Amino acid sequence: MEYVLSAHTIKSRKASLLYDEGEWSGVRKIADRVCDDIKAVFGKKPELLSVKEAVQAEAVTAPVLFGTVGKCNALSKLDKAGFISLKEIEGKREVYSFTLLRDVPKKLFVNGAKGDFAQLLVIAGSEKRGTVYGLFHLSEMLGVSPFIDWLDMKPAKLDRFTLEEGFHFVSKEPSVRFRGFFINDEWPAFGNFCTKNYGGFNAKVYAHVFELLLRLKGNYLWPAMWSAIFPNDGPGLENAILADELGVVMGASHHEPCCRQGEEYRYVRGKDSVYGDAWNFNTNEKGITRFWEDGLKRSGKFENVITVGMRGEADTAILGREATLADNIDLLRRVLKTQNGLIKKHVNKDLDRVPRMLALYKEVEPYFYGDETTPGLMGDPELEGVTLMLCDDNYGNLRTLPTPEMRDHKGGYGMYYHFDYHGYPISFEWFNTSFLPKVWEQMTTAYDNGIRELWIVNVGDIFSNEYPLAYFLDLAYDFDRYGTSDLHSAVNYTKDFPKKHFAGLADSYECAKMAELLRGYTKITGARRAEAMNAGVYAPFAFGECDRLIAECDRLIGEAEKLRAEISEEAAFGYYELVYLPLVANLNLQKMWLLATQNQAYASFGSTYALKLAKQIDACYALDRALTEELHTIHNGKWYGMGMSEHIGFKYWCEEECQNPVKCTFTPADKDRLIVSIPGTGQHTEGTPWTARVLTMGAFLRPDAEYGLIALSTASAKPVAFTVESPEALTVSKTSGKVKPESLLLLKVTLDRSKVKGCTIFEILIHGAAGHIRVRVPVCVPAALEKGTFVYCAEDSVDMSETIHAMPKLSKVYGEGAMIGRCISIEAEHFYEKNDTKRGRFEILPDYGRTLSAVKAFPQDVTWTGKDAPGVTYRFVVPRAGRYIVRVMSNPSNPPVRTPELYFGLGVNGGKMKKVNAIPEGFRVGDGNDPWAAGVLNNIRETEVAVDLSAGVNTLTFYALSPNFVLEKLVIFPEGEAPSRSYLGPEESFRG
Amino acid sequence: MEYVLSAHTIKSRKASLLYDEGEWSGVRKIADRVCDDIKAVFGKKPELLSVKEAVQAEAVTAPVLFGTVGKCNALSKLDKAGFISLKEIEGKREVYSFTLLRDVPKKLFVNGAKGDFAQLLVIAGSEKRGTVYGLFHLSEMLGVSPFIDWLDMKPAKLDRFTLEEGFHFVSKEPSVRFRGFFINDEWPAFGNFCTKNYGGFNAKVYAHVFELLLRLKGNYLWPAMWSAIFPNDGPGLENAILADELGVVMGASHHEPCCRQGEEYRYVRGKDSVYGDAWNFNTNEKGITRFWEDGLKRSGKFENVITVGMRGEADTAILGREATLADNIDLLRRVLKTQNGLIKKHVNKDLDRVPRMLALYKEVEPYFYGDETTPGLMGDPELEGVTLMLCDDNYGNLRTLPTPEMRDHKGGYGMYYHFDYHGYPISFEWFNTSFLPKVWEQMTTAYDNGIRELWIVNVGDIFSNEYPLAYFLDLAYDFDRYGTSDLHSAVNYTKDFPKKHFAGLADSYECAKMAELLRGYTKITGARRAEAMNAGVYAPFAFGECDRLIAECDRLIGEAEKLRAEISEEAAFGYYELVYLPLVANLNLQKMWLLATQNQAYASFGSTYALKLAKQIDACYALDRALTEELHTIHNGKWYGMGMSEHIGFKYWCEEECQNPVKCTFTPADKDRLIVSIPGTGQHTEGTPWTARVLTMGAFLRPDAEYGLIALSTASAKPVAFTVESPEALTVSKTSGKVKPESLLLLKVTLDRSKVKGCTIFEILIHGAAGHIRVRVPVCVPAALEKGTFVYCAEDSVDMSETIHAMPKLSKVYGEGAMIGRCISIEAEHFYEKNDTKRGRFEILPDYGRTLSAVKAFPQDVTWTGKDAPGVTYRFVVPRAGRYIVRVMSNPSNPPVRTPELYFGLGVNGGKMKKVNAIPEGFRVGDGNDPWAAGVLNNIRETEVAVDLSAGVNTLTFYALSPNFVLEKLVIFPEGEAPSRSYLGPEESFRG
Repeated sequence: MEYVLSAHTIKSRKASLLYDEGEWSGVRKIADRVCDDIKAVFGKKPELLSVKEAVQAEAVTAPVLFGTVGKCNALSKLDKAGFISLKEIEGKREVYSFTLLRDVPKKLFVNGAKGDFAQLLVIAGSEKRGTVYGLFHLSEMLGVSPFIDWLDMKPAKLDRFTLEEGFHFVSKEPSVRFRGFFINDEWPAFGNFCTKNYGGFNAKVYAHVFELLLRLKGNYLWPAMWSAIFPNDGPGLENAILADELGVVMGASHHEPCCRQGEEYRYVRGKDSVYGDAWNFNTNEKGITRFWEDGLKRSGKFENVITVGMRGEADTAILGREATLADNIDLLRRVLKTQNGLIKKHVNKDLDRVPRMLALYKEVEPYFYGDETTPGLMGDPELEGVTLMLCDDNYGNLRTLPTPEMRDHKGGYGMYYHFDYHGYPISFEWFNTSFLPKVWEQMTTAYDNGIRELWIVNVGDIFSNEYPLAYFLDLAYDFDRYGTSDLHSAVNYTKDFPKKHFAGLADSYECAKMAELLRGYTKITGARRAEAMNAGVYAPFAFGECDRLIAECDRLIGEAEKLRAEISEEAAFGYYELVYLPLVANLNLQKMWLLATQNQAYASFGSTYALKLAKQIDACYALDRALTEELHTIHNGKWYGMGMSEHIGFKYWCEEECQNPVKCTFTPADKDRLIVSIPGTGQHTEGTPWTARVLTMGAFLRPDAEYGLIALSTASAKPVAFTVESPEALTVSKTSGKVKPESLLLLKVTLDRSKVKGCTIFEILIHGAAGHIRVRVPVCVPAALEKGTFVYCAEDSVDMSETIHAMPKLSKVYGEGAMIGRCISIEAEHFYEKNDTKRGRFEILPDYGRTLSAVKAFPQDVTWTGKDAPGVTYRFVVPRAGRYIVRVMSNPSNPPVRTPELYFGLGVNGGKMKKVNAIPEGFRVGDGNDPWAAGVLNNIRETEVAVDLSAGVNTLTFYALSPNFVLEKLVIFPEGEAPSRSYLGPEESFRG
Repeated sequence: MEYVLSAHTIKSRKASLLYDEGEWSGVRKIADRVCDDIKAVFGKKPELLSVKEAVQAEAVTAPVLFGTVGKCNALSKLDKAGFISLKEIEGKREVYSFTLLRDVPKKLFVNGAKGDFAQLLVIAGSEKRGTVYGLFHLSEMLGVSPFIDWLDMKPAKLDRFTLEEGFHFVSKEPSVRFRGFFINDEWPAFGNFCTKNYGGFNAKVYAHVFELLLRLKGNYLWPAMWSAIFPNDGPGLENAILADELGVVMGASHHEPCCRQGEEYRYVRGKDSVYGDAWNFNTNEKGITRFWEDGLKRSGKFENVITVGMRGEADTAILGREATLADNIDLLRRVLKTQNGLIKKHVNKDLDRVPRMLALYKEVEPYFYGDETTPGLMGDPELEGVTLMLCDDNYGNLRTLPTPEMRDHKGGYGMYYHFDYHGYPISFEWFNTSFLPKVWEQMTTAYDNGIRELWIVNVGDIFSNEYPLAYFLDLAYDFDRYGTSDLHSAVNYTKDFPKKHFAGLADSYECAKMAELLRGYTKITGARRAEAMNAGVYAPFAFGECDRLIAECDRLIGEAEKLRAEISEEAAFGYYELVYLPLVANLNLQKMWLLATQNQAYASFGSTYALKLAKQIDACYALDRALTEELHTIHNGKWYGMGMSEHIGFKYWCEEECQNPVKCTFTPADKDRLIVSIPGTGQHTEGTPWTARVLTMGAFLRPDAEYGLIALSTASAKPVAFTVESPEALTVSKTSGKVKPESLLLLKVTLDRSKVKGCTIFEILIHGAAGHIRVRVPVCVPAALEKGTFVYCAEDSVDMSETIHAMPKLSKVYGEGAMIGRCISIEAEHFYEKNDTKRGRFEILPDYGRTLSAVKAFPQDVTWTGKDAPGVTYRFVVPRAGRYIVRVMSNPSNPPVRTPELYFGLGVNGGKMKKVNAIPEGFRVGDGNDPWAAGVLNNIRETEVAVDLSAGVNTLTFYALSPNFVLEKLVIFPEGEAPSRSYLGPEESFRG
C-alpha cells in the first residue's frame, strides 16, 4: 500500500506530524515550518502532535513520525521492536533515514493503546541536524524549494504525494563537516534591508537566514559583522539562542576570536573599561583576555566553531610594519595559548571537543609558514585540533594548498571562499557574478587536496547569490555526487536548478530557458565582474568581441523579458529573484560599458553612430535605476535595500569616486560624408581623395565563413547616399540607398565559391558623396587539411599588404588553404591528441572560463616531474619558419605552494619539453600587487613563451607539471607581431 | 600759400587732376580711382583732365598734375623750365616725387596760353608704377586706407586738406624689386566668392586684386591656380592685359613655367594634341616645348617674372622615386636650356632683360645643391640672371639661406613665404593666423642674408590676411624703416595699423584697442594655428595654461564685441573685416578646443563642471556657424564664400575626415559628492575615507603670490554643501555654502605673511557630505635674493612630500627663499647679464613667440665660432647639486645651411662652452617628417641638454653659434624629473 499525502489525508488528520516528548525544540520548530510547506503544497496545514496525542486520536492513521536519536523514545521503541534500525544512523554526522512502516501497533508507544497506525512514515535523525535535514528532505520531496521562505517561492500545488510501500533510505554523512556562509559587507544592502523590514540585525531576520542555511543543508554561519553584533542584536542573545536551538553552528569571521564580534570591542573599550583601551595583546593583555573570556562565558555554551588567533582591528594586521615576523609569531603563539586556556575553562576541558578555527588569511599565512630563518606556527601544540582555515584570493582562486606532509594535521583544513568581496583590486558586492564551473574546479581542487573540515563562502548580502550558494553547499554536502567525479557537475547543476526550484510551476521549456539564462549571464560576469567593467575592458572592434557580447547581452535580456511575460504567476517572483533580476541587471551593466567602449571608438573617427550609442548608454543607465527601484518596491518591499550597492564605474577598489560612463558626442559634419568600416576590425575610411585608406574585409580568408560584413555610417547629420559595385562572385545585400545618421547599416557580403579558383583578391567599390571607398576582399580557397589542424585566424590588421602579397607564394609552399594570418588561436579543448600517462590525464572542463572551455590535468593533487606529465597536443600550420610567441591563456590560479611557482611544459614538434613558470615576476597574492590584480580582474593569466617553428605543419604539446593549472586558450603569432589588443583574445582560428 | 584740397576746390574745378597725352592708360585708370578716393573724402569727385583741357579751363587754378617720365611732356617742360628736377627720379625703380609749385604759367604747356596755374601739385613717377604709387600716396595723405576698395573701407570725410607752401619730397626706391602675393588654395573660399560675385576668376575680380596690390605698394602677383587659368579667364587674355596695363608684374607659381598655368595642360593635352599627352620632358619633349612656346607667345609681351624649370603636375616631383639625383639634374638642365631658348625667341633676345625665376622648392632644392657625388645646378650658365627663389618651410620658417659665396649670383634671390598653406603636416587656410614678430624676424633674416630680389607671400584667399600682407609688403617696400634696424617694427606696426586705416573714423582709444586686439589674437594663433588646434594641445590643468588662455580668449572676444557696439558706423565694416571677425572666429575656435581639453579632463574624474563645459563647446560651435553665416551675408554678400574653409578638428594634413570636438558627458552621481581640486594642477579628491588624497596648494611657495585658488565642484546633480576650516594666517573667500552642479566654485585663499615665521605648511580642511578634504598649503618666506636671480617655479606635482620634507633643510643651506620646486623656468629676455662681443650681440625681440618674448643674436648673417660668440647669462638657484636638464625652447628655425645643423652653446658657472646642435636626429623639412612637423605645429623646438649644477646659485650662459636661432624660454629641472606636460611649458619662476 503506497503512502499518500494529500489535502484529504491532512484535512482528515490522517497524516499528522508526530514528535515525541523530549525532542529538540528546534527540531519541532523546523517541523512546524515543514507543516507550513505541506500546507503550501496541499492547501491544508497538518497537525503537529506528540506521539501520545496521536495515539489517542483515532483519525490519525498514517502519520509522519520525526525524531532524533537520543531525544525520541518512539524511535527507540520502533528500533527495539524491529520496525527500524537505528544502527543505520547512530553516531553518524547529520544523517537521517526515511522508513515507511505499516501496521504499527499504537501500544508500542503508549502502553495499552489500541489499534495500529495503518502506516507510519518515520524520519529519524542521527542528531539534531540529521532530523532537521530529514524534515526538510520531506519538503523537497514534495517539490518545495529550499528557497520557499527566503525567496518566498511558493511550491506547486499537489493533489497527492505518494511513497511506495516499503520506502526506505538512509542519507549519507555530509562530505564536509562545517558548511556555511558568511553575511558580509552588509552595508548598504543587507543593512538597510534588515533595518527597514526587521528593525535590525535581529532574530527575526536571522530566523530566515538560519532556515535558508538549513534547507540548503548547511550548518555553519558567520553573521554580519561590519556594524552588527550578533550576540547583542537579537535583541540580547536571542540570535545566538535561536541559532543553537535550530542547530546552526555559529562562527565568526576570521579576525573575531573567542565568540566576540569585531565591532564589540569598540563599544566596551575605554579608559576605565575592564577591557582596557587598546586592541593590543602586548600592552593590554589583561583587558583583551578579559574581553575574550567574557565572550566565551556568554556564547561558549552554544554550538560554535570558535575563532582563535588575533588580527588587527577591521581586517588589518595586528602589529605595525616595523614588527618582525618573529615578533608576530611569538605574539600569536601567546594569544593562542591564552585562548586555549580560556576555552578549556569556559567551554570544555576537552579541547578536542571544541571546534576551533584559525584563519590563515592575508598576513596570518606567513605566521603559519614562517620563513627560512623563523619557524612558523605549523605543528605548534597550541594549534593541535584547530582547523586551519585556508582562503581563496577573494576572487575565487585558491591560495596555497596543504602540502602532503601537512594533510595529517589534527583539526584538518577549512576554506574561506568568496562570492562577494570588499577590497583590492575591485570589490564585488552587487548582484551575483560567480560562475559555477570555476567554483567546481577550485573547490574540488580544495577537497582533493584535503580541505574537508570546513567550507565557508562569503555571500555578502545573500540576496542574488542563492544560486551559487546552493551549489557551494550541495558540493560540500554531497561531494560524491557533485565533486571531482563529475566533470559536468556545474553544467548539469545549472540545468537541473530550475527543475528543482520551479518544479510544477514551470514547464520543461521554461526550465531549460532559465538554465540557459543562468548559465548565460554568469558566463559573462564570470569573464568580468560588474564593478570591474569599464569602457576600456573589451576592445571596441578587435575580433568582433564587443559586437558579439552586446548581441549576446541583448539576446539574453530579450529572452529574460520574454520569459517574464510568459511564466506562470506562481513562478514569476522566484524567476524574478533567481534569474531575471541578476541577469538583466548584470547584462544591462555589461552592455552599458560595451556601448561606452564602442561609443568612444566610433566617436574617435566621427561616426554619428556614436551618438546613437550615447543614447543607448542613457537607456541602460535608466534601466539600471528602474531595476533598483523595482527591487525596492516589488513584493511589498520585501527586498528593500538589496539594490543599494554602488556598482558602476569603480575607480578604486571600493566605490569611492565611482563614475557613470563617459559618453562621447559631437556635432556632426555639415557636409554629406559617408564612413565605411569593417566590423571586427578598427578599419574605417571616408574614401576621400587625399587620405583614403583601402579597407580589407578578411572574412573570406576563413574557408568556413558564410558571409562578411561592411558597415556604413555617416559623419554628417543628414542621410548620405551610397552605391556599391562588386564583382560577380560577391553578392552585397544592398547595392544602393541612403545611410541614416546615428545608425550603422551593415552590408552582408556573400561569396559564390564556385566562381573562385585559387586564392584571389576581389574588390568592392562603395561610392559616397565625398569619396570612393575600396574594400579588398581576399578569398582563400582551402585545400583538404588533416582533421584537427588549425590554419589561420581572422585578420585584424588594417594593412594586409604583407599577408596578401605573401598569399600566392605561401599557397605554393603549403598547398592552398594553408593560409596566412597574423596568429593561430586555439581553444584548449580542441587538441589534436591527448597524451595520458599512468600518473595523470587531461580532461576537458566544459564551459569553463571566458570562452569555450578549458582543459586541466587530473588527479588534482599530483605534481608531475616531466616524464610522467600528461599532455595535450595541438596541430597547426604557420606560414613561415621562425621565432613565434605562444601566448598561454590560463585561469589565474595561484601557486599551490608557498613559492611563486606554477609550472607547465611546452614541447614543439615532439622535441624537448620546456618548463615554464606561469607566475610572473613580482607576483604576490594581495593588496597592491598588479600582476595578481590583472589576473583576477581579467580572469585570465597570459604567459608568453617563445618557440621556434617550422614552415608548415607544427605540433605543440602542452604538459601539466604543477597541479591547479587550467588551460583555456593558446594564441601563436610571429614574434613582434602580437595580434590587436582584445579582452578575450583572437577568435579561434579555422580548423580542418 | 598752402595748397588746399576741399569740397570747394574740387567742386569749383580749381583742383582737378591733370595728365598729359601719352600717359600710360593704366596710370590714368589709377588716377580715376584716386579721384574716387577724393570724392569719398570730400564728397565731390574731381575732374580728370588733360593738361590741354586744363589750360583752357579758367576755373582750374590749382590742379594736380601726375605723369610718368617719358610719358608726360608736361613733366619734361616743367623740368626744362626749372620748376622741377626729374633727375631726382629718372632711371630709378618705382620712384615718385611730389612738388608743390606756384604761379606756373600755362603757356609752358600750351603755346600762347595765358595766365598761370596759381598752384600746381606735381606728382612725377620714374616709371609707370612710380606714378601709380605716387597717386595712391596722395590718397593715403588724404587718410584713405589702401583697403578702400578691397575691404570697402570708406575714409573719414575731410573739410580740407592742405600742403605747406613748397611741399616737396622724393620717394625711395623700394627695397625689394618684386613684391607681391599669391592667391592660392582658392577653393572653397576665394573660388565661391569669385563665382558668385563676379562670375569667375575674371578681370572684374582681378581689377580689385590689382588695386589692392598696388595700393599696398606691391608690384607682383601669382594668380589663383587650382582650377583657374589666369590667361584664359579674363575672359580670354583680359586678366593679363589689365595687369600689364596697371603695372602689375605677373608671375606664376613655382611649378608653372613659361607663362603657362598648371591647369592648362590638362585641358589641351590629348592623343591628337600638338602638345602630346604626357607632362614628361623625356618622353614628350616636343609637345611640352610647344606648350611652353605657345604660352610665351601668348603672354610674353606682358610684364612678367617668367617661371623656369619644371616640376611634376599638381605640386609633385617631376620624376618618379626611382630616378637618381643626376637624372633629375640632367633633365632640369635640358629643360632650362629649352626654356631660355624659347624666351630669347619670343620675349627678348637679351635674357638679362627678362626677369626669370626658378623656385628651389621642395624636391628642387637638392637639384640645385647636388650632393657629394653629383654636382647641382648651382653656377650653371643656364641659371645666370635667373632669380633663385628660396622658400620658407610653408610654416613661416626660412629654409636654407644663400651662403656668402652664393650671394653674388646674378639674378639674386627670392623668398616664397606663407600666410596660408595647404599641405603637411596641417593646412592653414581659414582666417589669418600669422603673427607679425615672427614675420619680421624671419624676413629680416632673409633680407640680411641677401634675399632681396623677390618676395612673394601665399595669402590663400587674401581675405583676412590683409593685416600681415600689408606688413609684408611694407617691409619689402621700405626695409630701412621696418627692417632689421627696428627691433620694435612688428609691435609698432600693429600699434600704428588702426591709426592708418581708421584715420578720422576711430579715436585714439579705439585705435589702441584695435591694436591690442590684433596683437592679442595673432599672439594666440601664432602659438597654435586654428586647424592644428585640438583637445590634446594645451594641458588641461598644468601651470594653469588652459585657464589663462580661456580667460584671455574671453577677454579679447569681450573687448572685440564691446568695440563693435561702440565704434562709429563708418568704421564698423572695416573693423569687422580687419579685426572683429578674424579675432572672434579664431579665438572662439581656440576656446572651443580649450573647453574640450578641460571637458575631457573634468569628465575623467566625474566633475559635473564637465557638463557645463560641454554646453559651452556647443555654444562655441554655434558661434562659429553664426560667424560664417554673417560673413556670407553681411554688406550685401560682399564676402560670400570666404568662410567656407573647413577649420575644425583636422585629423590629417587636409580637412578630410575632420571632426568637431568630442564632448564628454555622463550622468551625475546620485549621492551628494563634493570634489575639491587645485587649479593649475591635476590634483583632485573627494576626500572619502579609503581613497582620499591630500591636496597641496603650492601658490604660496612663490613669495610674490597674491593668492591661491581651491576649486569646488560636484560629482552629483544636486547642490552639495561644504564648510571650510583654515588656520589664522589664511583667509578663505568663502567658508561655507553650497556648490551648484555644473559649476566650479573658486575659493580664493589669501595669506597674511605677517603671521608666518619661516617656511611652514598650513592645512585647510574642507568638509563635504561624503568626505573631508585636506589641502596642504606650504608657505615659503623668502630671504633677500640678488636681483635677477631665479629661485623656483610653481609646483605642479600632486605628491609634494619630497619637496616639502626637504624644505627646512634646504632653507638652511641657501637661506630662506632659496626654495625648491621641480623646475626653474626662465623667459629668455630675463637674462642676468648680456655678453656682447665685437662680432655680435644679443637683442630682445619684443613679444616674439608663444610667451613673453625672445632673444636673438645679431647681425643675422654671422656664424660664430665660439670665442667671438655673444651670450646671455641667466642666474638661478637650485636646491641640490647634481645632473640637471636644460630644456632650451626656441623658435623651430630651420638650419640655415644644407646640413641639419643649428648650433648654440651652453656654459655653466663660467665654465667651458658646450656646443649643441638644436636640430634633432632624423630632422628634415618636409612631408612626413615628425620632428619638423612637431616644431612647426607647436611653433617651438625643445632641445634638452644635461648639465651639472652646484647646490645654490648657478649661472648658465647661452651662446649664439649658428645664425637664425631664436631663444624663447629655458626650463631647468633635475634629470628624470621633467615637469608635467604642458604646451607652453612651466610658468616663469620667481625672480629676485
